[in-house]
Amino acid sequence: MSEENVVYIGTKPVMNYVLAVVTQMNGGTSEVMLKARGKAISRAVDVAEIVRNRFITEAEIGAIDISTEEVSNREGSNSNVSAIEIQLSK
Amino acid sequence: MSEENVVYIGTKPVMNYVLAVVTQMNGGTSEVMLKARGKAISRAVDVAEIVRNRFITEAEIGAIDISTEEVSNREGSNSNVSAIEIQLSK
Repeated sequence: MSEENVVYIGTKPVMNYVLAVVTQMNGGTSEVMLKARGKAISRAVDVAEIVRNRFITEAEIGAIDISTEEVSNREGSNSNVSAIEIQLSK
Repeated sequence: MSEENVVYIGTKPVMNYVLAVVTQMNGGTSEVMLKARGKAISRAVDVAEIVRNRFITEAEIGAIDISTEEVSNREGSNSNVSAIEIQLSK
């Protein structure tokens, strides 16, 4: 999957990401990967569900993977954060 | 899967749920299902990752399902909330 098919879910309102996904899929992209870390994980699930239930009803949830990533904070120490990848395809 | 193998993830500290899962799996249960809704979804992912990485390294993440559930709030109106189910087995 090329990098441009990935939507990174952060702290913006959920509909911003829904719009990004819907725009990509309606523009001919058949697969979009949602990626999120930490507290944004629940927002990523919201995005996938809203896209599928309200906007692109033929979209299907593909593989869902969870993992742990190591991140450096401002003080220079490392901590672990959970991550999720949700594949959406139509 | 019987109801007793389900761990519902809520707003308690993440290690409470990790302990519940580890206790079940060390007590002979080979499969535990984590269920969470809304903002607790990211905590459920944390629980699965911590159990697998730190406590029961032979545990594997099985099927991960996401869905939308309708909940009634105190005013009597309904709203939708995302939900996740994460299967852990060893």
